[in-house]
Amino acid sequence: MNITRIGIVGYGNLGKGVELAIRSNPDMKLAFIATRRDPASVTPRTEGVPVYAYADLAQHTADADVVIVCGGSATDLPRQTPELAKLFNVVDSFDTHARIPEHFANVDAAAKESAHTAMISVGWDPGMFSLARLYGNCILPDGKDYTFWGTGVSQGHSDAIRRVEGVQDGKQYTVPVKAAMDAVRRGEQPDLTTRQKHTRECYVVAKPGADKAKIEHDIKTMPNYFDEYDTTVHFVSQEELNRDHSGIPHGGFVMRSGVTGAEGEHKHLIEYSLKLDSNPEFTTSVLIAYARAVSRLARENSFGCKTVFDIAPAYLSPLSGEELRAKML
Amino acid sequence: MNITRIGIVGYGNLGKGVELAIRSNPDMKLAFIATRRDPASVTPRTEGVPVYAYADLAQHTADADVVIVCGGSATDLPRQTPELAKLFNVVDSFDTHARIPEHFANVDAAAKESAHTAMISVGWDPGMFSLARLYGNCILPDGKDYTFWGTGVSQGHSDAIRRVEGVQDGKQYTVPVKAAMDAVRRGEQPDLTTRQKHTRECYVVAKPGADKAKIEHDIKTMPNYFDEYDTTVHFVSQEELNRDHSGIPHGGFVMRSGVTGAEGEHKHLIEYSLKLDSNPEFTTSVLIAYARAVSRLARENSFGCKTVFDIAPAYLSPLSGEELRAKML
Repeated sequence: MNITRIGIVGYGNLGKGVELAIRSNPDMKLAFIATRRDPASVTPRTEGVPVYAYADLAQHTADADVVIVCGGSATDLPRQTPELAKLFNVVDSFDTHARIPEHFANVDAAAKESAHTAMISVGWDPGMFSLARLYGNCILPDGKDYTFWGTGVSQGHSDAIRRVEGVQDGKQYTVPVKAAMDAVRRGEQPDLTTRQKHTRECYVVAKPGADKAKIEHDIKTMPNYFDEYDTTVHFVSQEELNRDHSGIPHGGFVMRSGVTGAEGEHKHLIEYSLKLDSNPEFTTSVLIAYARAVSRLARENSFGCKTVFDIAPAYLSPLSGEELRAKML
Repeated sequence: MNITRIGIVGYGNLGKGVELAIRSNPDMKLAFIATRRDPASVTPRTEGVPVYAYADLAQHTADADVVIVCGGSATDLPRQTPELAKLFNVVDSFDTHARIPEHFANVDAAAKESAHTAMISVGWDPGMFSLARLYGNCILPDGKDYTFWGTGVSQGHSDAIRRVEGVQDGKQYTVPVKAAMDAVRRGEQPDLTTRQKHTRECYVVAKPGADKAKIEHDIKTMPNYFDEYDTTVHFVSQEELNRDHSGIPHGGFVMRSGVTGAEGEHKHLIEYSLKLDSNPEFTTSVLIAYARAVSRLARENSFGCKTVFDIAPAYLSPLSGEELRAKML
């Protein structure tokens, strides 16, 4: 068995998820964890694994076949992934859709210059949902795409709630509108507004003495985050929030509705959906599978930056071509 | 735009579907139709397209970039695809799962020897469903696979009904059992017997004076086809059968139910489903998308036999890598 040695950079939700996901993959080994904090302050769940300072990583390039960059897309990844692509083969989960072309160019240049293989935007959206969109578009060119998210916790919207005056804590769920999904599934190809596709459910803990009516108003009218949606605000106690809303579930649906035939008389629906108890653990499960592909591509001297679109599915599997054809085709 | 010239071999349901699907793809052009019948007996829907005799195809190797072999898996494809892979880049929809390794080996040898690119088993199962199984297995290694088919017409089972004594005509629908699918969706990872996964609905036209009770008994107890299923037999008139059951819809569901976390405490469900008004037209839509990939791989001198597992998704699209990343990632 070809063992892939994985380095984790960043030990938050995502880094911890990678550490766990490695255990489910017998051909993977955790090589090290790296952090920008004081390495002594990090206690890995895995016994015996070294923790390095981010700044010292240039000394450890021989220790990992692939490094998974587990930072945030806002500020960490745009800097770290190109930096690390000069030292290692890398994978990240960069998810700021609008900035993907720029991030791709930076990582591609760094990886090609140093003869490394890099992958960006690996996860479920971007990632598996992007693949569902691509396959759907190529198979049914006469058609329309729909992506629905949820039911799930949006970190960005939860953060936005917590910044509202008088709010002590809060959690936001994005909920897809079933009537809209059913119309798509019937092949109606509806034009859907933002409001028709998703609703937003907020669970909010008010500070003692805060004006709840004002909090509700401030949330519902918040531009970019809530004003274009039908939003419901539920006030709960901190205990209730901790007890009932501590998970980070998510998921969603990618649908391609298309037609074929001499007159477009035959309707077809392709639907890909995810229902996830833990958003970060699923994301890291995808990252690990693609780390296997990156390690192989590096051995084949296929350098530069890739996305999920560029990876033949067989590269994700520890099985041989013969085994895959016999068991899964 | 890079135009891919497609040759169709075999002008049945599948060949006619390819002809239609080409119209939805502006970068595709129908080069010829070839048949084992008398070419004069074939009237293509597309004006001006030449019809060649199968036996004369060696004279037309320069006319098509890819040939789509539209025969049956039982006897046509095992002979034709290796034969044609010596002359052309080829794609087929070979779907006898158990014989895939043997067919792959034959086509691979023929294609490599003559420097062609070949793909076998392209469609939805094998094909898109195989991809869903592969991605699901790689992302959630601690999990279980489920494939449900239907609701849809099974050609093989319809043929079996029509061979029963006293039967004039008949159509069989494979129906997935909703209770079983729901148990999988709840993350229960049930062990399901054949009977628990699908039921079979038969619409049968009896010959005048035939013994309906005997027909029903003969169908329900037929080994391999019906004996392991809960089967319902509906007797209808030929008019009803023609009116209500002339379509060839199909579809199905591939589910991967898996867990992550320190103790496997987080459940995840990946579900891929298809709902198709026309089974052959959807299959040909997949074939056409992969013909585009085959044409590109041939230009890159990547010869031999491939399956959907070996094709990077970007190869299916007429868009460039930049466009794909900007629009679909």
